[in-house]
Amino acid sequence: MNDKMIRFIISWVLKLEAILMMLPVLIALIYREKEGFVYLIWAAVCAGIGCLLCRKKPANMEIYSRDGFVAVSLSWIVLGVFGAVPFVITREIPFYVDALFEIVSGFTTTGASILPEVEALSHASLFWRSFSHWVGGMGVLVFILALLPMKGGSVMNLMKAESPGPTVSKFVPRVRGTAKLLYQIYIALTLITMAALILSGISVFESVTLAFGAAGTGGFAVLNSGCVGYSPVQQWILTIAMIAFGVNFNFYYLLLCKKIKSAFGSQEVRAYFLIILMSIGVITWNVHTMYPTFGEALRQAAFQVGSIITTTGFATADFNLWPELSKTILVMLMFIGACAGSTGGGIKVSRILILLKTVHKELTAIVHPRSVKRIRFDDHVVEHEVLRAINVFIIVYLVIFAGSMLVISFDEFSFETNFTAVAATLNNIGPGLDKVGPMSNYSEYSTISKLILIFDMLAGRLELFPMLILFYPSTWKRRG
Amino acid sequence: MNDKMIRFIISWVLKLEAILMMLPVLIALIYREKEGFVYLIWAAVCAGIGCLLCRKKPANMEIYSRDGFVAVSLSWIVLGVFGAVPFVITREIPFYVDALFEIVSGFTTTGASILPEVEALSHASLFWRSFSHWVGGMGVLVFILALLPMKGGSVMNLMKAESPGPTVSKFVPRVRGTAKLLYQIYIALTLITMAALILSGISVFESVTLAFGAAGTGGFAVLNSGCVGYSPVQQWILTIAMIAFGVNFNFYYLLLCKKIKSAFGSQEVRAYFLIILMSIGVITWNVHTMYPTFGEALRQAAFQVGSIITTTGFATADFNLWPELSKTILVMLMFIGACAGSTGGGIKVSRILILLKTVHKELTAIVHPRSVKRIRFDDHVVEHEVLRAINVFIIVYLVIFAGSMLVISFDEFSFETNFTAVAATLNNIGPGLDKVGPMSNYSEYSTISKLILIFDMLAGRLELFPMLILFYPSTWKRRG
Repeated sequence: MNDKMIRFIISWVLKLEAILMMLPVLIALIYREKEGFVYLIWAAVCAGIGCLLCRKKPANMEIYSRDGFVAVSLSWIVLGVFGAVPFVITREIPFYVDALFEIVSGFTTTGASILPEVEALSHASLFWRSFSHWVGGMGVLVFILALLPMKGGSVMNLMKAESPGPTVSKFVPRVRGTAKLLYQIYIALTLITMAALILSGISVFESVTLAFGAAGTGGFAVLNSGCVGYSPVQQWILTIAMIAFGVNFNFYYLLLCKKIKSAFGSQEVRAYFLIILMSIGVITWNVHTMYPTFGEALRQAAFQVGSIITTTGFATADFNLWPELSKTILVMLMFIGACAGSTGGGIKVSRILILLKTVHKELTAIVHPRSVKRIRFDDHVVEHEVLRAINVFIIVYLVIFAGSMLVISFDEFSFETNFTAVAATLNNIGPGLDKVGPMSNYSEYSTISKLILIFDMLAGRLELFPMLILFYPSTWKRRG
Repeated sequence: MNDKMIRFIISWVLKLEAILMMLPVLIALIYREKEGFVYLIWAAVCAGIGCLLCRKKPANMEIYSRDGFVAVSLSWIVLGVFGAVPFVITREIPFYVDALFEIVSGFTTTGASILPEVEALSHASLFWRSFSHWVGGMGVLVFILALLPMKGGSVMNLMKAESPGPTVSKFVPRVRGTAKLLYQIYIALTLITMAALILSGISVFESVTLAFGAAGTGGFAVLNSGCVGYSPVQQWILTIAMIAFGVNFNFYYLLLCKKIKSAFGSQEVRAYFLIILMSIGVITWNVHTMYPTFGEALRQAAFQVGSIITTTGFATADFNLWPELSKTILVMLMFIGACAGSTGGGIKVSRILILLKTVHKELTAIVHPRSVKRIRFDDHVVEHEVLRAINVFIIVYLVIFAGSMLVISFDEFSFETNFTAVAATLNNIGPGLDKVGPMSNYSEYSTISKLILIFDMLAGRLELFPMLILFYPSTWKRRG
């Protein structure tokens, strides 16, 4: 293991976090909040520790596969562990594990909260929470890799660990030039969302934080009532924004390159919109008697479908009270998740599509044993390695899911609560059903359960393997 | 498709069913019940239709892969469709879909019931219900294959479809001689169970039906109270019997061949007992305050663990009222299921083991990229084909699970009810939780939901593919 290099990367994570914390300091200045001092001092501490940890570049900067996974998972843990401290010092979230839960939920773009009343927080802390969504949606190491000149192979090993999508990686393409363009798209879309929200009459601070939540598909709100109080137009703007950030960013890239045909030809994007439209249709029909007008039922259905499939987790309605069919559809959307290469979580539409194609292929093989069929996706043959990776992903996913369920069931909440709590954290959504429903929070879980759910959030955001490698004994064994 | 041959096989299924129905007729004679006439007449009808359907052997008796799957799924459907009729004629289950649910639940060794009061049934019908477990546990086509002299390849294609376990097939080995011995073991173990129950003081009729339920890992009881009323000794006998029938029958075969070391060396059997012991331990600890003595808590835990992991479904306690941890463990055991090569259902211990080994292998590959590791199971290298089959099995399993959940959620029962109803039918267990808990039944589901659950029971018993192939459009397309 290249310990020095890992320490070097973590030192940069701390320095980066110190820089990021300057923004809540700025917000505190604007609102004249004394919490600003806490963020300022703590940022200095982070920067200090970062500098102490590693003063000069290691001679050997090469990172191998295992080191990459360890570096990424440790980076994200450090980010959370240090990012949680201001909440504790300001006494806004006095219990440390709760603060850790909250900020990990932020960075992983989950949006699950332990706060019964978010409005009690200072503007600085509200901003820090929501800003963490925006940073986490993009990825943390990506920033650092932009700052550190490293060899191509090492960059790949880190990128692979932070964002191993099924075919295209989460938001990170091969070429630096393309990457830059994608981040410009991310920033542009965020700014458009902010502008639209401000124009619709939401205050600047709320618009900025909401846009961060939508862009990172996070879901922290800044009002106790979530998004219930916003006008229909404002809710529609948020719906469209959420759905837009769940689209594979290659789609926008292709649009910008004027490759309109291949943009709309993407099987994943088409399936994504098809699932959204069908879900909205069925749920609207299922809940229309609960709302005064058809338009309102449609809006509520669209908002919640968009919020859940993109794994954002904003809520305008307590879907806990919806009929079982609608709830079951939402639970399924939790697992499907957004497109690969978006900021959304979940299993991802492309993985689901490839899995369904596998089933189709196997059935065909039984019916016509002599036909040789390969699985194609967007006119490419899906390689055996990709298929295996997806299968392993599903198995690991199920193992983590079952293990988490088992541990948190010690808390004696209902089956529905526990099942959706794990689903909502592992898929980086936020709210589940029953006791962790959209109008409730995770505060009642025990400390051990909260730690498990923190693990699930990190595992979900990093697509399972980095966190698993970190806790895998033979990672830490020296080889003869 | 070899239509003639499929018709020929189905005609034999009907003739066999007519013969099997002679047993309830005999029971009716003993108890002087008029229901005997119904079974007698209906048996004659089945035999008549069987004879009409196909009067002579088809010239071409070859069965290919696809035909095998279709023949098996149709055979099981025919068995259910005709086997349900006596319940309707005797007015004991007047609604046909309910009767179909009940007898499919019998043949698939599920044990899920729509009857609120089983004691209202005649002895003939009670016997028919429980006897169907015993027949289904062994397999139906196996009987027929013993009667029909067919070519080796065709036999294999049918066997493969009726019982495709992960490595060893469900209860069916390659060599006819071994097969014979395994059936002798099945019969011997059933007789021992019967004898033990009779000696413990249970009436002969009850002992026989209970032994059928335990042997087939079915779970239909003959008392309204299930197994609550039996004495501790009787409950322990049932516990041991259930667990014994969930063991891979190769284990007994090896014991008989005096290969004791390799019998106890089986990783699957060891894992099976380890899971059972650990589950009993945790649940006993978790529920001991609910029972007057430690011994009773242990007995209740052991009975329910044995009943659920073997997918039998007998109940001595309403585990619906148990703490959430115990319920979660039971739900997980539902999915794990018994050993391959037993009469039990579920995903099977060996599949789970191989999947866990896959995860281990993948993690090792990340940590030590240059090491080449193959997955070994019981000193054999697991072939790539077997791994792929298991992966596909899991994917198909999840697809059927999600689809079923979606349809039955139209009925507006709780998430827990629907989730465990699908789990309990797809894994051939019987009782679930909440509204389908051990002291409740499935009668409240709508007709469409019942049909979906019937599909799930058949899919679970035949290990998914035969039922899927039957409803797969291109199975029925002629090829140019």
